[in-house]
Amino acid sequence: MASASLGSLRNLSMAIVTLTTDFGLSDSFVGIMKGVMLRINPDVTFVDITHEITPQNIRQAAYVIASAFDYFPKGSIHLSVVDPGVGTGRRPIAIYANGHYFVGPDNGLFTKILRRYKPADVVELENRKFMLPSVSNTFHGRDIFAPAAAWLSKGEPLNNFGSQAASPKLLDLPVQLQPTPNMIEGEVIHIDHFGNAITNITQNLVEHVGIELGSVSVEIAIKSHVIKEISPNYSVVKNAKKLSATFGSFDTLELFLRNSDACSSFDISIGDHVEIRFY
Amino acid sequence: MASASLGSLRNLSMAIVTLTTDFGLSDSFVGIMKGVMLRINPDVTFVDITHEITPQNIRQAAYVIASAFDYFPKGSIHLSVVDPGVGTGRRPIAIYANGHYFVGPDNGLFTKILRRYKPADVVELENRKFMLPSVSNTFHGRDIFAPAAAWLSKGEPLNNFGSQAASPKLLDLPVQLQPTPNMIEGEVIHIDHFGNAITNITQNLVEHVGIELGSVSVEIAIKSHVIKEISPNYSVVKNAKKLSATFGSFDTLELFLRNSDACSSFDISIGDHVEIRFY
Amino acid sequence: MASASLGSLRNLSMAIVTLTTDFGLSDSFVGIMKGVMLRINPDVTFVDITHEITPQNIRQAAYVIASAFDYFPKGSIHLSVVDPGVGTGRRPIAIYANGHYFVGPDNGLFTKILRRYKPADVVELENRKFMLPSVSNTFHGRDIFAPAAAWLSKGEPLNNFGSQAASPKLLDLPVQLQPTPNMIEGEVIHIDHFGNAITNITQNLVEHVGIELGSVSVEIAIKSHVIKEISPNYSVVKNAKKLSATFGSFDTLELFLRNSDACSSFDISIGDHVEIRFY
Repeated sequence: MASASLGSLRNLSMAIVTLTTDFGLSDSFVGIMKGVMLRINPDVTFVDITHEITPQNIRQAAYVIASAFDYFPKGSIHLSVVDPGVGTGRRPIAIYANGHYFVGPDNGLFTKILRRYKPADVVELENRKFMLPSVSNTFHGRDIFAPAAAWLSKGEPLNNFGSQAASPKLLDLPVQLQPTPNMIEGEVIHIDHFGNAITNITQNLVEHVGIELGSVSVEIAIKSHVIKEISPNYSVVKNAKKLSATFGSFDTLELFLRNSDACSSFDISIGDHVEIRFY
Repeated sequence: MASASLGSLRNLSMAIVTLTTDFGLSDSFVGIMKGVMLRINPDVTFVDITHEITPQNIRQAAYVIASAFDYFPKGSIHLSVVDPGVGTGRRPIAIYANGHYFVGPDNGLFTKILRRYKPADVVELENRKFMLPSVSNTFHGRDIFAPAAAWLSKGEPLNNFGSQAASPKLLDLPVQLQPTPNMIEGEVIHIDHFGNAITNITQNLVEHVGIELGSVSVEIAIKSHVIKEISPNYSVVKNAKKLSATFGSFDTLELFLRNSDACSSFDISIGDHVEIRFY
Repeated sequence: MASASLGSLRNLSMAIVTLTTDFGLSDSFVGIMKGVMLRINPDVTFVDITHEITPQNIRQAAYVIASAFDYFPKGSIHLSVVDPGVGTGRRPIAIYANGHYFVGPDNGLFTKILRRYKPADVVELENRKFMLPSVSNTFHGRDIFAPAAAWLSKGEPLNNFGSQAASPKLLDLPVQLQPTPNMIEGEVIHIDHFGNAITNITQNLVEHVGIELGSVSVEIAIKSHVIKEISPNYSVVKNAKKLSATFGSFDTLELFLRNSDACSSFDISIGDHVEIRFY
């Protein structure tokens, strides 16, 4: 890892730390992490991505982090703590990739970042100088990760935190799809607050196999349901009881029920098989 | 719309953006909107009003926005996204009224503002320069409204965003009441987190018809219940099982159950008829 | 109360206000309090501790405030509103203790602070100059406490707000334990978002009675369950159905179920008796 490749925020006036955790909002955990950071850098700006990751659901957090980070300014620090292995040998790490920093446990949370931008700079958080004086076995968010994020936000160079971390952990997330001009098979990877089912089939992928949407007939199949068209938006669907599909705001195929909750109504779950066929 | 009447924040050091949505807190939607704004204006201060509007409930959001905006400094920008018609012909708009800016879909969200301060300056968000380069059909909060709010917070004049929007949509919200010195009829317009029922009958209205509270007898009727007095506060009621009434902190008649949830206990819903009689 | 002992933030560039309430996140209450503060001090930094205190649960809020405040920079202001007695004779107060300010109703919310740091400076909020012009009987968070916090954050000295408040209210929180070298008896004082049961038995207390953990055998008993060891962390427990114990990140004995919800699974409640025995 050449130190020249390591970004530094020094001389920038802005210091943004985003937070993604499974801590919920009813305890003082999140507030405490922010207090720890403000003691190190009173000028930091916090943005909560979410604290409602299902407890211990690393996979869900990996999806959420990857969906959000790139909308933030370069130099932002993305603090992510979903950490069932806290207190064990799993490494605490920081990553610099595509102009952004990521801080959290090395348990696969950053799989999508590490797959997309390689080789990324990955450092193990070893330097006690950038931790709280006493480190617990159950709350590294407070003791290790929040301090690291705050010191990064003050411009501390990444390579001062520790040595390079080889082979950071990667989750077996839904694999690259094998699209053909006849069909693309994928799966539901996220269910949002509205009950929309987000799949891993992107419009980009459809175009990549030479399909021009609008000039072919399509069928989208999930469980026993078949959807015969792709709607340009949610509201165009007149039948509010009909499972429908659109390419949503993240370029992904979404299944929805107009003004209602598709996944509850049609019993759709994360991991459900989805296929789109072209005629 | 005379440009001289259009406010500008230029030269103000403060830039506050409030957020009111039905996005919930479990997805990255809200975080992404903030990231988009920070890329345009790193000095913005965010205040979340709520992201727990019931999905697609424009009426509830209209109430919440109107209850809150005026407590913020003049020049604040109130970003509101409850947008079941996203991707259709409904216009994206920005409003300047009573020293505040409002940004969101033209679907009635701002009914109470537009009724109270007229004529307000209302502009359709047309200028692509103040949108993200690619505009989706399902997430205008990210692609159109957040950028507009951020540019407004940097002092971009309202009339640079587009042309005047005639006849912005108004909801048929509970109409002006017809109070008499004998009785005022109204309805439940909001149920708060504590289960209190907020009505549209105000103390101001009572005084307007010449009633001096304390010098007359009152009866408040809702469903099959009759309340025989107005309590000065919640705690004065000794019987914790008795439906009670007070004029609350927004000057409105509230029905409550001391230290408990009145609406669950007495099956009270939004829209329920309420009347107050004077003797 | 000697005025020389009263802290002032004047000349500090930083002004942090934390918020702890039972207001929930679905109404505009929290946003309104922040708006009120920004009108008084546009440079304040807000940190939400939690707004999901169970309605009217002063005891729970007292625990949460005490767990969090000390992680914030000295000079921070901790605004706490769980206020079932709003509008009655209960006093509004502000406290200066251990370099921090606390603002809220005098109903026991600050019991742990007042027990730990005595004598603290406690002032009744009497000066109308630091309240909103009109004070309601149901929302002192907006009308009295938020303005007081904002004025404190601008450096207004504590003794300008009112006269000294004698005998602030103290809750009968779980009493000081009577540890012996054979046994310590305590109770469950909090259940966190993950379903872990936090007790009031601390590692410090264990060491105080001369017990060296690791060199003695222990038994932890709660209800009909007996736990035979203290785990160094959550993950070391291989049996995910076994109620387990560790000294957690606040130095307190915690009962947990690996990657799951111990309190739901074993029907553990706040107030349940816990004892740890040494052999």
